[in-house]
Amino acid sequence: MEIAELAGRIVAGDRRALARAITLVESRRADHRAQAAELIEDLRVRSDAQAIRIGLSGTPGVGKSTFIESFGMMLLAQGLRVAVLAVDPSSARSGGSILGDKTRMERLSREPGAFIRPSPSQTHLGGVARRTREAVALCEAAGFDVVLIETVGVGQSETVVAEMSDLFVLLLAPAGGDELQGVKRGIMEMADLILVNKADGDLKPAAMRTQADYAGALRLLRKRPQDPEGYPKAVCVSALQEDGLAKAWEDMRHLVDWRRETGHFEGRRAEQARYWFAQEVRHALLAQLETPQARAQMDDLARAVAEGQITPTVAATRMMEDLRGD
Amino acid sequence: MEIAELAGRIVAGDRRALARAITLVESRRADHRAQAAELIEDLRVRSDAQAIRIGLSGTPGVGKSTFIESFGMMLLAQGLRVAVLAVDPSSARSGGSILGDKTRMERLSREPGAFIRPSPSQTHLGGVARRTREAVALCEAAGFDVVLIETVGVGQSETVVAEMSDLFVLLLAPAGGDELQGVKRGIMEMADLILVNKADGDLKPAAMRTQADYAGALRLLRKRPQDPEGYPKAVCVSALQEDGLAKAWEDMRHLVDWRRETGHFEGRRAEQARYWFAQEVRHALLAQLETPQARAQMDDLARAVAEGQITPTVAATRMMEDLRGD
Ligand SMILES: Nc1nc2c(ncn2[C@@H]2O[C@H](COP(=O)(O)OP(=O)(O)OP(=O)(O)O)[C@@H](O)[C@H]2O)c(=O)[nH]1
Ligand SMILES: Nc1nc2c(ncn2[C@@H]2O[C@H](COP(=O)(O)OP(=O)(O)OP(=O)(O)O)[C@@H](O)[C@H]2O)c(=O)[nH]1
Ligand SMILES: [Mg+2]
Ligand SMILES: [Mg+2]
Repeated sequence: MEIAELAGRIVAGDRRALARAITLVESRRADHRAQAAELIEDLRVRSDAQAIRIGLSGTPGVGKSTFIESFGMMLLAQGLRVAVLAVDPSSARSGGSILGDKTRMERLSREPGAFIRPSPSQTHLGGVARRTREAVALCEAAGFDVVLIETVGVGQSETVVAEMSDLFVLLLAPAGGDELQGVKRGIMEMADLILVNKADGDLKPAAMRTQADYAGALRLLRKRPQDPEGYPKAVCVSALQEDGLAKAWEDMRHLVDWRRETGHFEGRRAEQARYWFAQEVRHALLAQLETPQARAQMDDLARAVAEGQITPTVAATRMMEDLRGD
Repeated sequence: MEIAELAGRIVAGDRRALARAITLVESRRADHRAQAAELIEDLRVRSDAQAIRIGLSGTPGVGKSTFIESFGMMLLAQGLRVAVLAVDPSSARSGGSILGDKTRMERLSREPGAFIRPSPSQTHLGGVARRTREAVALCEAAGFDVVLIETVGVGQSETVVAEMSDLFVLLLAPAGGDELQGVKRGIMEMADLILVNKADGDLKPAAMRTQADYAGALRLLRKRPQDPEGYPKAVCVSALQEDGLAKAWEDMRHLVDWRRETGHFEGRRAEQARYWFAQEVRHALLAQLETPQARAQMDDLARAVAEGQITPTVAATRMMEDLRGD
């Protein structure tokens, strides 16, 4: 299929075309990369559809999949279309992946208004980030109203997800004791909304205590210019009982509306596009080392370095000369 | 001064020449970088002196400075020459820096057989790592028997230090409770020797308990080919009372001797040199973005990207064409 035709079908809402396009952006083949770039450029010109990009993170078992299922179904009931993408920080994650999760998102995955895509397969986080960013752009052009980008929280991947989201949601479990859970300060500072999940049954009192603790902790953070009064905020939800989800969505909408009015929404997108550009350049520079020729030369020089025949610095200089074709 | 002359003086043990050379390798000026490379290459040919490179890490206040002072003085008393370098993970660390520490290493800093150098000033960790690696090479060529590379433990910098050390020592404080302290598994796995410091006075029982806990934890780790029987190990010391230091040094020597005999010592160095080389190449590739011309072009493209006139990917392609001079 021609790229232009693919673009046309995506914009027309053809899900198979979207799935195919995501496969294209996920490919590492050079010709596919070129086609992917062409496609995204084509879509940029063709469509100015704008989704709300929601980053969602939380430790394993906190209820991300359950939340996405319930929250997604609620959005669909409101007439909104929802895409779900994932950034998987581990190269070989065992279980709990969004793919295996289709069972846990059983209802959502069968809905025509929903689109669920697992994390691109194992490579370094930078590569996953890049392909997910492109997949977000594709979903956006395909007319989805909300794009949820999930990641399991292990430090680095949250940052990656926050960098491609309009709004970052942190899902927490009710705390056992009275201490704040081991949420790193840096992660908390990225959150626009903290959802304490499992606020149901036995766990409800603990969830409410946790919510109060985090609300307090958030008040201690420095006020950010991109936040309306009362944000970032912490609220309780139950993904299982579908409780508090409408309110959480209202809170997200309020934040987004406010940011749109004050220009922070577009400002953040512009900032992200700049960042993505810089990342792409860095990636392209380093990709020069991935050709068979460059690899062979790197291997030869590395051997000489390991044998002490040449210093690492001199070897690096020689490699650079080679790359430049001197 | 000519580079060859500088190299000659360093090898002859001239401390001022060494200090000057370290300043040279720390410089970011292109001409200085070239001279630094030349110097290190010259020294490689001129000298095959080999120090024992000891990486030392621990949380703030655990007693790193006190340990270095006591341990360094003990080594000097054995007729060994000691250089102390630091890798500071934070860009603007307040207090506790090895420089301010000269008061805490008062005796050592006055000894003619000792050389203490603070961490190169604030930049990203990669830059500090690179310059510290070169400083290690200089100290080695200058005939120091032991090079101690200190870092305060915050996760990433330990890895950087371990990567330039022959042996990695983790300093721990006596634990309050019966739980293992918040030492990340990854850090523990890097340690060749764990020293539980402050095993004196009131703290002695806690230190012994902590030592036993860690000895147990270390036994649970997978046996590594580069370890003789009984390693990695955990022992108690008191830097303040200079207790257990001779034994710790014996343990280090035993490890180093064993690794030398079995080829693991040279193997590790070769591995590190390979790694350093790869890092240098990556660094040089990315440095192409630092010229005034490249910066200006990046700024222009970033602006167009932020305004949505062009996708990040297309902009990156254009930047790459520019760099290649297409
Ligand atoms: N009580 C209660 N249990 C919940 C809730 N949400 C999720 N759970 C349960 O928590 C467990 C983990 O839920 P998941 O949705 O798989 O959690 P996850 O965050 O996706 O986990 P990973 O995919 O492994 O990272 C399941 O047994 C869910 O049924 C909730 O709101 N209340
Ligand atoms: N009791 C006891 N106190 C010690 C010992 N070693 C260090 N201390 C004390 O612990 C405190 C911190 O020691 P430093 O040597 O400055 O610790 P550090 O690890 O260098 O700290 P930073 O430079 O801030 O990272 C000082 O008050 C020392 O006197 C020891 O062996 N026993
Ligand atoms: Mg899940
Ligand atoms: Mg200190």
